[in-house]
Amino acid sequence: MSNNTKIAVRTASSTYEVEIGSDLLPHIGARVDSLLNGGLCAGKQRVFVVTSPEIWKLHGERLASGFPSAPVLLSVPAGEQHKRLATVERLAEEMAQHGADRDSVLLAFGGGVIGDMTGFLAAMYMRGIRYVQVPTTLLAQVDSSIGGKTGVNLAAGKNLAGAFHHPLAVYADTSILSTLPPAELRAGLQESVKAGIIRDRALFDFLDTESAAVLRGDRDALTRVVADSVRVKADVVSADERELGLRMILNLGHTLGHAIEAATQYKQLLHGEAIAWGMIAATGIAAHRNLITADEAAQIERVVRAYGPLRSFTANATELVALTAKDKKNRSGARSFVLPLGIGDATVVRDVSEAELLEAAEAMMSEVNSLQVTA
Amino acid sequence: MSNNTKIAVRTASSTYEVEIGSDLLPHIGARVDSLLNGGLCAGKQRVFVVTSPEIWKLHGERLASGFPSAPVLLSVPAGEQHKRLATVERLAEEMAQHGADRDSVLLAFGGGVIGDMTGFLAAMYMRGIRYVQVPTTLLAQVDSSIGGKTGVNLAAGKNLAGAFHHPLAVYADTSILSTLPPAELRAGLQESVKAGIIRDRALFDFLDTESAAVLRGDRDALTRVVADSVRVKADVVSADERELGLRMILNLGHTLGHAIEAATQYKQLLHGEAIAWGMIAATGIAAHRNLITADEAAQIERVVRAYGPLRSFTANATELVALTAKDKKNRSGARSFVLPLGIGDATVVRDVSEAELLEAAEAMMSEVNSLQVTA
Repeated sequence: MSNNTKIAVRTASSTYEVEIGSDLLPHIGARVDSLLNGGLCAGKQRVFVVTSPEIWKLHGERLASGFPSAPVLLSVPAGEQHKRLATVERLAEEMAQHGADRDSVLLAFGGGVIGDMTGFLAAMYMRGIRYVQVPTTLLAQVDSSIGGKTGVNLAAGKNLAGAFHHPLAVYADTSILSTLPPAELRAGLQESVKAGIIRDRALFDFLDTESAAVLRGDRDALTRVVADSVRVKADVVSADERELGLRMILNLGHTLGHAIEAATQYKQLLHGEAIAWGMIAATGIAAHRNLITADEAAQIERVVRAYGPLRSFTANATELVALTAKDKKNRSGARSFVLPLGIGDATVVRDVSEAELLEAAEAMMSEVNSLQVTA
Repeated sequence: MSNNTKIAVRTASSTYEVEIGSDLLPHIGARVDSLLNGGLCAGKQRVFVVTSPEIWKLHGERLASGFPSAPVLLSVPAGEQHKRLATVERLAEEMAQHGADRDSVLLAFGGGVIGDMTGFLAAMYMRGIRYVQVPTTLLAQVDSSIGGKTGVNLAAGKNLAGAFHHPLAVYADTSILSTLPPAELRAGLQESVKAGIIRDRALFDFLDTESAAVLRGDRDALTRVVADSVRVKADVVSADERELGLRMILNLGHTLGHAIEAATQYKQLLHGEAIAWGMIAATGIAAHRNLITADEAAQIERVVRAYGPLRSFTANATELVALTAKDKKNRSGARSFVLPLGIGDATVVRDVSEAELLEAAEAMMSEVNSLQVTA
């Protein structure tokens, strides 16, 4: 436990810690009780855990063992298709039936879908109660559990309804990652590659030189990658809580990545896989604009591919460009786009033209289609 | 227009103005454009008006005439039963289909239900966009449009899902009040009586001595009552945005009032009528505790009844007391209760016992049941 890393997120509205370690689960109960000044042990406050049956079966006992009394379980089935207002409403009704009040605390125990929904449930239940994030996927540990973005999907698009609502704390137990399917681990690592590209050259280099250890799930290597990725996200969020400027750089690869996910109804690629394609396309645009050297662009592409394979999907370039027009980051009709300026540096531009984007999307789709032919 | 009253709400998260006047509707477009630095006239930003067909038919043309281009209408049927997440979700989908982005602005044009839902829609759409309140009922003008409380009902209870999200501005056109049914005007005035009791003796005295003018809808009298009531609410909200202390005094009469509404499925009394019963009960408890003089208690009761009649409903005292246990203001199981200390002063206590509450509820129900017998 002494080797655990603690990283602070400091925003105008809230300050909290992200703790990363390889044996955290049994200790979370005591930590939450301490955050609540002993309110759990005293029986004054109650914890409601939102989780899926699969996660609870694998890890529930280790988590529950640390709580002074059994938390109330609120179960949601796994899957993006359940990330909707109807699910959040059902959970809120269950909480009310169990007598949850403004002092009750939610605990999100799962991947990004559960974290996003639980955070939004906490944001809206009685106009806001506290919650804790215990992310169980790499993607959730390095990205979605940090920064206070919560929400659900609309039919019209992903994460279109939500709130900024920070957790009391985030606990990332990296031992959980050994139970992840390899494809999910690889896809999650693309967010760490992204963190390296936009802000942390040393992390990028580590991911480059130590890719073998990281990909076979070496615990020390993974814990370092998670901690460094969290640090990038925490720093950026601390500087720009509401995504008015800097925070947008976290969206490197996400404009086209989201378009790919939308075009394929979120069914063909994992999030990180779509983002990987988007990062290569964004790097291509930056290289065309001479914002990044050919050498650095090649390094980026090499490391992204090392955490691949990049898998094929069904879409066409024109459709993808049209879908980027719906990006939430767009303001008054202007499209925001993140471009790498080198390894460890990125910027947000608003002048990427349709033509430029189409060219990048066509180059991408030409590779994708060649993959389909050879598959 | 020069006689309009402007009252500032200043909270940690937001500062905005409430403007009260008798011919505001045609000028709101220009005011909103000015708040957005000309964004409407320049065609950069778009306004989405949430309203009901009834309100739009009566007042839509006067509102729309002031906008540089026609706002997009989002229609919701009148009635508390539509104040649900499903309605908010449907409105969000419509916004997305119309291309609403983070710079778009919502305008709530209706009573409390529309205001609460529009505020919550604004709070959650793309994790928060701006909105303006144009309340069309007295209750909404003096109470629900101010203070940033937004939300919807769950099956388990009223306003159990929501957010704190302040409007850009509130425009209360008192000329609209002349189209209200008399019962709704009377019920709304109970919130003004409440404002007088908790914080403004002069307003209370005006409501007492000028009840005839106020009740016949005299425009000057009503405009004064609205402005004074808004001032009380704005002051309290400015001092305690998140209802951690002082703001709770706004709930005078609401603990039992909400219980009455819940017991009658919100179908037998208007909100203000239920609150009137609750204020009389709370005054009774305060008098029993010798927190208020018998004379002042009698004055309160007289003025509350002047804005009646207090109508009967079907419930029993035990049930009402049980329902107060579900109050959102309760923390860690303790019941909060607002008691008047005099005219213009109130406090929040947490030690009202079940027995005390039951006695007050029984006294109330004994009068209610006598009304039913004579009816």
